[in-house]
Amino acid sequence: MSSPPRLTQYRLCPRSRSIRLALAEYGTEIALLDENPWEWRKDFLAKNPAGEMPVLEYDGGPTLCGAYSISEYIAEEVMPPSRATATRPPPLFPGNREGRAEVRRLVDWYHGKFDREVSRELLNEKVYETMRPTHGSPDPSILRTVRTNLRYHLAYTGYLADARRWLAGDDLSFADFAAAAHISVVDYLGEMPWNEYPAVKIWYQRIKSRPSFRALLADRVPGSAPSAVYSDLDF
Amino acid sequence: MSSPPRLTQYRLCPRSRSIRLALAEYGTEIALLDENPWEWRKDFLAKNPAGEMPVLEYDGGPTLCGAYSISEYIAEEVMPPSRATATRPPPLFPGNREGRAEVRRLVDWYHGKFDREVSRELLNEKVYETMRPTHGSPDPSILRTVRTNLRYHLAYTGYLADARRWLAGDDLSFADFAAAAHISVVDYLGEMPWNEYPAVKIWYQRIKSRPSFRALLADRVPGSAPSAVYSDLDF
Repeated sequence: MSSPPRLTQYRLCPRSRSIRLALAEYGTEIALLDENPWEWRKDFLAKNPAGEMPVLEYDGGPTLCGAYSISEYIAEEVMPPSRATATRPPPLFPGNREGRAEVRRLVDWYHGKFDREVSRELLNEKVYETMRPTHGSPDPSILRTVRTNLRYHLAYTGYLADARRWLAGDDLSFADFAAAAHISVVDYLGEMPWNEYPAVKIWYQRIKSRPSFRALLADRVPGSAPSAVYSDLDF
Repeated sequence: MSSPPRLTQYRLCPRSRSIRLALAEYGTEIALLDENPWEWRKDFLAKNPAGEMPVLEYDGGPTLCGAYSISEYIAEEVMPPSRATATRPPPLFPGNREGRAEVRRLVDWYHGKFDREVSRELLNEKVYETMRPTHGSPDPSILRTVRTNLRYHLAYTGYLADARRWLAGDDLSFADFAAAAHISVVDYLGEMPWNEYPAVKIWYQRIKSRPSFRALLADRVPGSAPSAVYSDLDF
């Protein structure tokens, strides 16, 4: 029997979280390897020269780097007949060609734009800086900009959640996992203004209640305790 | 007869360029609409609320936003039988499942990491800043960092070009178009240290000679003349 695939990730890395959600929805058992992104360890760079997470290694199989490559690889999996029936997982990129394009547009929004304008900066200021040997502290002007950016992104997410059943349309998709992954990290860091965005809250409650989300809600990182509502399903 | 699809782009936007290359390889005639990324025009934001390029609009069909969504949409095209024979274009994501994962890893490298660490900063400093009403000038310390980053990326590109026929393996792929799009912009701005990276130069000469590249080599933007070697096939 072969060992489960190994996912090198950081507990609060949104891209890693989106892949953990996708793999959990597919019922794929994985072994989690923790990596600290601010350390730039040589062993990790040997695995992925881009120095980015997540990295998925199959026993005797390929090593896949990055959420884009991994998500499309998972989506291309051919289901064995026994799993293709009642328990078939939701496709990551559902719908027709146009539907899939809409899912990918939104994945790009969260893993690209939201990451650059919110998550990356927030993690750097509130977590990585404090973990470095220099023990830096968050820059208030950067945090102000990030909080302004966040509201713009939540307004757009609320607009989508209000107009559609799931973010990309009628079906749950990888766009929901990508969005929820980023928002879950913002929430862990106590920066989610839930009351200002009720449609986002209702959508997030639904996805947070899925069994695939459980492992994420149990995550804790040294030096940063989660916000009071982080693991609460009825927040 | 329907009009050709319209691509909203900026001449020196690397992501737009990668899509122009892909569409040209597929023999898809398009109408180019020029958009200045530093203007954030309302009409453009109505088309793509992310404010990012390129945007591809089909006559009576979908509007697709961003290089990720568009490239995968093009790759899913089912070729009509007449075109599926001798003149069949190169697939954007060739190979088996692992091969495609490798192409996507590298697309992510160039459209993600290279873009963030080199192209985006270079365009902002050398072009957008000078076009804004404030007429800013490039920040020498940012340019220094960008040039250091660039060398790291070119070393890795050279390593790939040296070890493989094309960047992702035996076959030309969207990874080559993405990489060439970014490098062509760096070259336009006179920042390519060609002599230091001979393997990159040989690979780039091959892709630069393809008919799909011609339109890019004819591009000019107001305020920035291209480097002496930019359009030269034998540089």
